[in-house]
Amino acid sequence: HGADDIECIINGEYSVSCRRDRERDDVYVPFSLVHKYFEIYGKITTTDGVEKFEWSHSYGKIYHPKKKYDPRGTFTTFENYNVEVRDRVKCISGIEGVPISTQWDPKGFFYPTQIAQFGLAHYSKFLTEAEPRRRIIDDGEKHIENWIVSKDAFMVREYDSESQTNILRFSTSDHVSSQVWLKVNISQDFVLSADVMMKPNSSMTVVLQNKEKKETVYLHYVASTQLIYAQDDHIYYGIGVEQKWRKITRDLIIDMQKGWILQDRPKRRSPRNKFKISSVILSGTGGLDNVTVSSSEHMAQFYAAASWLVRAQRGRGGWPVPARRRVAAGVADLAPGWYSAMSQGHAISVLARAYSRSGDVTYLQAARRALYVLDVPSHAGGVKALWMDKFVWYEEYPTKPPLFVLNGFIYTLLGLYDLHVIEGENSMSLAKKMFDDGMTSLKTLLPLFDTGSGSFYDLRHFTLGVSPNIARWDYHATHVNQLYLLAGLDDDPILLNTAKRWEGYMQGKRAAHN
Amino acid sequence: HGADDIECIINGEYSVSCRRDRERDDVYVPFSLVHKYFEIYGKITTTDGVEKFEWSHSYGKIYHPKKKYDPRGTFTTFENYNVEVRDRVKCISGIEGVPISTQWDPKGFFYPTQIAQFGLAHYSKFLTEAEPRRRIIDDGEKHIENWIVSKDAFMVREYDSESQTNILRFSTSDHVSSQVWLKVNISQDFVLSADVMMKPNSSMTVVLQNKEKKETVYLHYVASTQLIYAQDDHIYYGIGVEQKWRKITRDLIIDMQKGWILQDRPKRRSPRNKFKISSVILSGTGGLDNVTVSSSEHMAQFYAAASWLVRAQRGRGGWPVPARRRVAAGVADLAPGWYSAMSQGHAISVLARAYSRSGDVTYLQAARRALYVLDVPSHAGGVKALWMDKFVWYEEYPTKPPLFVLNGFIYTLLGLYDLHVIEGENSMSLAKKMFDDGMTSLKTLLPLFDTGSGSFYDLRHFTLGVSPNIARWDYHATHVNQLYLLAGLDDDPILLNTAKRWEGYMQGKRAAHN
Ligand SMILES: [Ca+2]
Ligand SMILES: [Ca+2]
Repeated sequence: HGADDIECIINGEYSVSCRRDRERDDVYVPFSLVHKYFEIYGKITTTDGVEKFEWSHSYGKIYHPKKKYDPRGTFTTFENYNVEVRDRVKCISGIEGVPISTQWDPKGFFYPTQIAQFGLAHYSKFLTEAEPRRRIIDDGEKHIENWIVSKDAFMVREYDSESQTNILRFSTSDHVSSQVWLKVNISQDFVLSADVMMKPNSSMTVVLQNKEKKETVYLHYVASTQLIYAQDDHIYYGIGVEQKWRKITRDLIIDMQKGWILQDRPKRRSPRNKFKISSVILSGTGGLDNVTVSSSEHMAQFYAAASWLVRAQRGRGGWPVPARRRVAAGVADLAPGWYSAMSQGHAISVLARAYSRSGDVTYLQAARRALYVLDVPSHAGGVKALWMDKFVWYEEYPTKPPLFVLNGFIYTLLGLYDLHVIEGENSMSLAKKMFDDGMTSLKTLLPLFDTGSGSFYDLRHFTLGVSPNIARWDYHATHVNQLYLLAGLDDDPILLNTAKRWEGYMQGKRAAHN
Repeated sequence: HGADDIECIINGEYSVSCRRDRERDDVYVPFSLVHKYFEIYGKITTTDGVEKFEWSHSYGKIYHPKKKYDPRGTFTTFENYNVEVRDRVKCISGIEGVPISTQWDPKGFFYPTQIAQFGLAHYSKFLTEAEPRRRIIDDGEKHIENWIVSKDAFMVREYDSESQTNILRFSTSDHVSSQVWLKVNISQDFVLSADVMMKPNSSMTVVLQNKEKKETVYLHYVASTQLIYAQDDHIYYGIGVEQKWRKITRDLIIDMQKGWILQDRPKRRSPRNKFKISSVILSGTGGLDNVTVSSSEHMAQFYAAASWLVRAQRGRGGWPVPARRRVAAGVADLAPGWYSAMSQGHAISVLARAYSRSGDVTYLQAARRALYVLDVPSHAGGVKALWMDKFVWYEEYPTKPPLFVLNGFIYTLLGLYDLHVIEGENSMSLAKKMFDDGMTSLKTLLPLFDTGSGSFYDLRHFTLGVSPNIARWDYHATHVNQLYLLAGLDDDPILLNTAKRWEGYMQGKRAAHN
């Protein structure tokens, strides 16, 4: 069947060339127009040699929870998150073991929300992934590996009274050829952990080699306070100068990638398949124990986040964000030092899990202290807003006027729920009261986030009188996932009905018009 | 260039046959899909022999006001309304001269909103249309027309002391052949008016003839109380049995069409061009004067509405709606006798205009009384709702819980504005206070009606927790027209900005996503 070209006038504004098929009595319009006009996604796929065109209304994945949300279990769908690979993560701090954000400040800063998400993602992966492979390279006990010691260097295995175990002690001279090194050949697994105590500027270097290309990358873990430095194939992470034993846990591939990005070199695809660990080099003076390579060390990374949260918490229980945040035109910037309800909530979720797994009440106390900031109004330096002087809203961004961001509010509610359950579900705790108040707000205001074909990210159109801020599909999917989760905790039908309707929007369904 | 068929999978749910154009590197999708999926309108048009395809995002017309809204002038865009042709108008009452609605009750009832809109439309047409053509058939003064009087009937011209003018007096016997009739030949104009006083069951019949087909329609205006009755080509309207002079004004074409519809005969296209008035027949006993045929009698129709409103107003100043109204699933029906803020507001707009043109304070007093119902809460039998116990909303449908219908609320505000201005713009009237309060509500809540690509008809999703009720494009256009009008009365930028953004939605523009 044939088709003629026909000019298509779009809303009297511009023209697109279409094709008229008289036999089928239809006009065919180019998908490129549909894509641009409606933001529909399309691609040609091939299955069993047959090409088809796949039209997708949206992207984003919905997870239907199989069981009731458990504050000791995975955090929402975070087992699918990989915080550290994000571009806005500058690197993982060698001293703290937590990500450094460049989201609103290229210098890099500790962003409590991101750090908590890093912890929650690793915690959730720990619960959902198979037991990791672990290979001890050297635990100081036996002569497991064959270290090569240059003439003017030394290495001994000896009992360390502080750590009450045998360790490796090493020292090299200032000469560049003076080294203690170990040849290894490890593929597939790239999470290195070790107990180390080194004199300033001493270092442990892990050498990665590209199996295909003649390319060698040196990851230097240095007893210094410098966050990260990179030049060509040498990438340096400061792990601190305190003279005490510390455990470091490093994802070598992440460390390598962040070094490349620092030099504006492109991110590589699947470097885990292309590299191997070829050697470990010690330089300077120090001790070493339990050098291990694993497929993952999620709990170590989780506890790194939990410990950071305990250490960084301020007197009022908050984790200030040290970066200036421009939230929206028409509202004053949030000056460095602002608090975020989402940080507070996520932190509580981390701390509740750390307490429930470790039994260490320090975590529980920190989680409880975190409630304080949630109860301080935004205009008084806190994060609490009121809708129409009535309904409490914990603000991800405590602007004046408030924006009522939805996803951050729900994450805050989850933190409150986590703490309440960890404290004992029958307790009439402050967390429980704050959770209940927040749920009342959510169930009341949730319809205002419904566009009839998607969801609003926030209610700035109401508070600022500006054009609405539609949630892009990944945020919309987050809303839907959050609502499905909450529908398991509260049987008010608004939660499940909204989740279902909003899921339908992702397949092109729309609310009816009259 | 060629194109191959390719199967297009829509959201993994169903398939549509598309065409792949490899040269243009595009896939062409059938417009029938686009129409069904997105409700986009398209049609092939021919200009100068060239066929084009016109893609329209929406229907509905936006009127950009050329000058500030004037309560003595046209009512919004109502000069474009033609209330009586609507299917939900059963007919125009012969006694009252106002429409009878069948919108929620097939029996028919006086719907104050519809009656007021009928008045406002005719008032607005009066101001915007050219002076009507008028032809006096007989005013009783001279022997203008040649009436044919059968033997057992009589007709005289005589002075009537009550109306203080010469009139026609007639009488026929009970015999069917006993008639007084006048042959005429009038095309183009079909609004008949006459002063009449007839004994019960006497009638004036206007005969319409189809100029093309042998088809005769008899419109009988009978001194009876029956609203309308039709059989075959005979259509009967009761004009009342009170023994006093009354003016009747009838749009003959409307009367004919409503008679057809009553017999389930299809509506005809442009009957005004196909029919002519061929005779007037008098039967029974009565008097007649000022028989006139005009192209329009808008002010008579306007005053019919205004007078009805004065007569029908209840003690509390309201116009109860005598039909049961099912507004939405999940809310109790409005029982017959409910009040509507939109009726009250529209009525005020009619009465304010009637007062300003006639100087008759009866209209002004009725308009002022109409405020009372607006200030009574819905739960107490009135129409006033409060948003979050704070912002007043005059409810088109005073359900419990309230629905916050937008267009009806704005029409109510216009009524308040009209009354305030007619009373004297500098007065601190109750109407002014109620208008100001309502405008504060509107400017506060207006953003909640923004879907990001259209507008909500009401806020039922908030108050009922159900799927949002999107305004179809004609209601959306009403919203936009109303906002442009209000932007001329109040310089708060939210009004003009919203009007512009919402007008953009009609051309496919959308609010940004993050
Ligand atoms: Ca050891
Ligand atoms: Ca006369």
